Amino acid sequence: MLKIKIDKESNTPLYLQLYRKLKEKIVDELSADTKLPPIRKLSDMLGINPATVVKAYDMLAQDNLIYKKVGSGSFVAPAAVSAGFKEDKNDSMLNHGQIKLDKSINFASATPSTDLFPVDDFKYAINHVLDRDQGEAFTYQKSQGFLPLRKYIQDYLKSKSIYNNLKEIQIVSGAQQAIDIIAKILLDYGDKVVVEKATYFGALQAFASRKAEIKSIEIKRDGLDLDELEDYLKKNKIKLFFTMQNFQNPTGVNWSREKQQHLLELAEKYNFFIVEDDLLSDLYYTENAPSILKQLDKNERVIYIKSFSKVFMPGLRLALIVLPQKLLPEMLETKYATDISSAGLTQRAFDYYLREGFFEKHISLKRNLFKKRFEVMSEEIDKKLPEEIESFIKPEGGLYFWLKLPQGKDSSKLYEQAAEKGVVFSPGYLFTASSAKSEYFRLSFAAVDEKEIKKGMDILSEVVRDYLGSSDEDDFSPLL
Amino acid sequence: MLKIKIDKESNTPLYLQLYRKLKEKIVDELSADTKLPPIRKLSDMLGINPATVVKAYDMLAQDNLIYKKVGSGSFVAPAAVSAGFKEDKNDSMLNHGQIKLDKSINFASATPSTDLFPVDDFKYAINHVLDRDQGEAFTYQKSQGFLPLRKYIQDYLKSKSIYNNLKEIQIVSGAQQAIDIIAKILLDYGDKVVVEKATYFGALQAFASRKAEIKSIEIKRDGLDLDELEDYLKKNKIKLFFTMQNFQNPTGVNWSREKQQHLLELAEKYNFFIVEDDLLSDLYYTENAPSILKQLDKNERVIYIKSFSKVFMPGLRLALIVLPQKLLPEMLETKYATDISSAGLTQRAFDYYLREGFFEKHISLKRNLFKKRFEVMSEEIDKKLPEEIESFIKPEGGLYFWLKLPQGKDSSKLYEQAAEKGVVFSPGYLFTASSAKSEYFRLSFAAVDEKEIKKGMDILSEVVRDYLGSSDEDDFSPLL
Repeated sequence: MLKIKIDKESNTPLYLQLYRKLKEKIVDELSADTKLPPIRKLSDMLGINPATVVKAYDMLAQDNLIYKKVGSGSFVAPAAVSAGFKEDKNDSMLNHGQIKLDKSINFASATPSTDLFPVDDFKYAINHVLDRDQGEAFTYQKSQGFLPLRKYIQDYLKSKSIYNNLKEIQIVSGAQQAIDIIAKILLDYGDKVVVEKATYFGALQAFASRKAEIKSIEIKRDGLDLDELEDYLKKNKIKLFFTMQNFQNPTGVNWSREKQQHLLELAEKYNFFIVEDDLLSDLYYTENAPSILKQLDKNERVIYIKSFSKVFMPGLRLALIVLPQKLLPEMLETKYATDISSAGLTQRAFDYYLREGFFEKHISLKRNLFKKRFEVMSEEIDKKLPEEIESFIKPEGGLYFWLKLPQGKDSSKLYEQAAEKGVVFSPGYLFTASSAKSEYFRLSFAAVDEKEIKKGMDILSEVVRDYLGSSDEDDFSPLL
Repeated sequence: MLKIKIDKESNTPLYLQLYRKLKEKIVDELSADTKLPPIRKLSDMLGINPATVVKAYDMLAQDNLIYKKVGSGSFVAPAAVSAGFKEDKNDSMLNHGQIKLDKSINFASATPSTDLFPVDDFKYAINHVLDRDQGEAFTYQKSQGFLPLRKYIQDYLKSKSIYNNLKEIQIVSGAQQAIDIIAKILLDYGDKVVVEKATYFGALQAFASRKAEIKSIEIKRDGLDLDELEDYLKKNKIKLFFTMQNFQNPTGVNWSREKQQHLLELAEKYNFFIVEDDLLSDLYYTENAPSILKQLDKNERVIYIKSFSKVFMPGLRLALIVLPQKLLPEMLETKYATDISSAGLTQRAFDYYLREGFFEKHISLKRNLFKKRFEVMSEEIDKKLPEEIESFIKPEGGLYFWLKLPQGKDSSKLYEQAAEKGVVFSPGYLFTASSAKSEYFRLSFAAVDEKEIKKGMDILSEVVRDYLGSSDEDDFSPLL
């Protein structure tokens, strides 16, 4: 019998304790296909709520450490044990589609395929700054970032109607680090955070690491349900609201101007910060760029994150934060305590790359290329998927479509069947804090060309029809 | 009158709350040379301990946001206000000597001057991997790191008698990030940590960010006072002990083999992890390399951090962690939530650089160069400083000397006087959690050549004699 001890006095949530303990057991001790205790039994044994056990089991399943057999329970996955934590298995990244699955058609990855990166131009920029700056390129940079880059970014943002002081601009090592640092500055144990339902998993992880309480609020076709938000705000003091305002991940939603204004008013009225993660506003396929919340921010309520590397070259790890003045001192301290400074060579090379106009050129080319893919995918969805599959919206930019299976269906199951046939995508539970089953799934066209899109949609269409035709039993759902 | 509210129910320590509130006021509202309330008055007003106010004031002084006038109190520094948070002022880094002070002789910086970086070799490596890997160099790497680099490092560590499994090796963006991630994995609110007294400030910051309780224990000439440690362990459950075993920063101490063995036994007996930050073990000036704790670690008690960039090229931001198996799953998750992965191009270029033997060549050259400086500095200290200045030890490697003023003197005051004459160094309070005054100071020879060492020691010697000849009043010490 499994020996597990849970500490009910601990600050760590029970489901997380259980998840970690089980993970250890699985990796270190248990043999493949060992049956885990039934949910009721384990919850009785530990004196905890069955839902807590379900949550821990779901997280293990999400890590591919256990598998579920309909009607008979959960079992240790052979891969988890035989290989320990195998070199070639990085579950978080696989789940997020950031690993190349060579043999599959990859509708999961939101990262452009590597042939789209401007390697030659960037190589030119690196060599230029190495010749120019010599050893200076390799010493510590200031924690706030390389000054000329920050100056250039100030002008660049001005050209997008985002006005700010130079001192408000902080360079960081990618958007994930931006979120992590902001979480460190603003969140203590038990602080409350609101996120969009659904949202980016990495943000949820960063907030969870600060032991924040995360509340998800429904996103509509034009932005958050602000009535639901205000109801929540009336009863709860929150520290921050995390949002992607344009081509939201995963829904593709653009917030309307009205909702943006209303959100800013709520932030003022209820005194919280808005963290705007702008990952894709450059990738619009309509005539005009969408409206960025930070443009409307008169009262320093918005902490604005912009990743330069996301669509450009994600491995660069480069992003910026524009932040309210009152957070500046803590930002400097926290960036320093996090990794001292971002790599100097990267900052210098990217500065030169921007100044030479390479970046604008690159984004403009990519916009055209992705627009083409977007149109093909949109057409394929309409043409090939059965009518029961709903599109949440038809996005006006970005890299993905958010689709919905009929009520009661589970996109994880569809995923399993599709993966067997050589097509992967992102099931909806990856974008929620709860890891409950979801009817939604995200199809991304970042890493597939037009031919692959068509081929992949042929396969997916067949799998969907098969799946919709089958009956769907889930031994876990009664407990949720 | 200053309006400040302190929340006594908050999880944030009172001194930190006060420090932050005052910082805001100073940056946003107060005019230069405004007198801050006397300590007693503010402590009465807020109903808190005077020592709490002293601590907050000390932190502000450390940030150069206020200055103290003997006998009349503390005042807002003009620079803090006129420039807000000025672009060219990054206090943390200045305090740590990582900013080039062009006109000063810099005994503060522990970072080699940029002319010592192997720019040409590294440029060659970058271009090689760009040609070889093309766009792959710019996509997300696995969170654990670039596989060939991890494999090479495994062999490299083996050659230093550190045996490990490949899966135990994690690449991170510099040693500071290593400490930050380990703190996230192991520390929750109120957990206890032991550090050496004195130690690296960035580690203290990372532990404080997790709201850990930090206990400092005296370091002796051959390592920690392990009796004091065991006394503490008998009464307190700690999560980790943070240590630098070789050429410790700032003392220069090497732990003896006996103490290393004893420490491992204590870790086993009292069930805690040891975080060994190996920043300088390659820089030994005796015949043999010093003994690394991880070499002796039979029971997976040591989390080993090695920075490759510190002496090599700090701006690269590259380090590795070797960690106990049971921490692997959380390491992957935490690295992902921190910044997804370290920059791919840097990892690939450094991998090639290592494989071509450039690194060993570079370290060996630097060892000779720093050994020469070390000898000059050692001789200068003996020859020029007055007898009242004690050397803590004569180090056998590394980059600094740890010196002590006579009892009751304050190295911060000596610092002020020396800085005026054009010599800077690191006063002792920078290496403690308390920010109390310290007789100790660190002289580093990383960024100065032999000529500068001699010139700087001439100046310092004079300043020291002046300072020792003067009487020393401190309006704050009675409260501490």
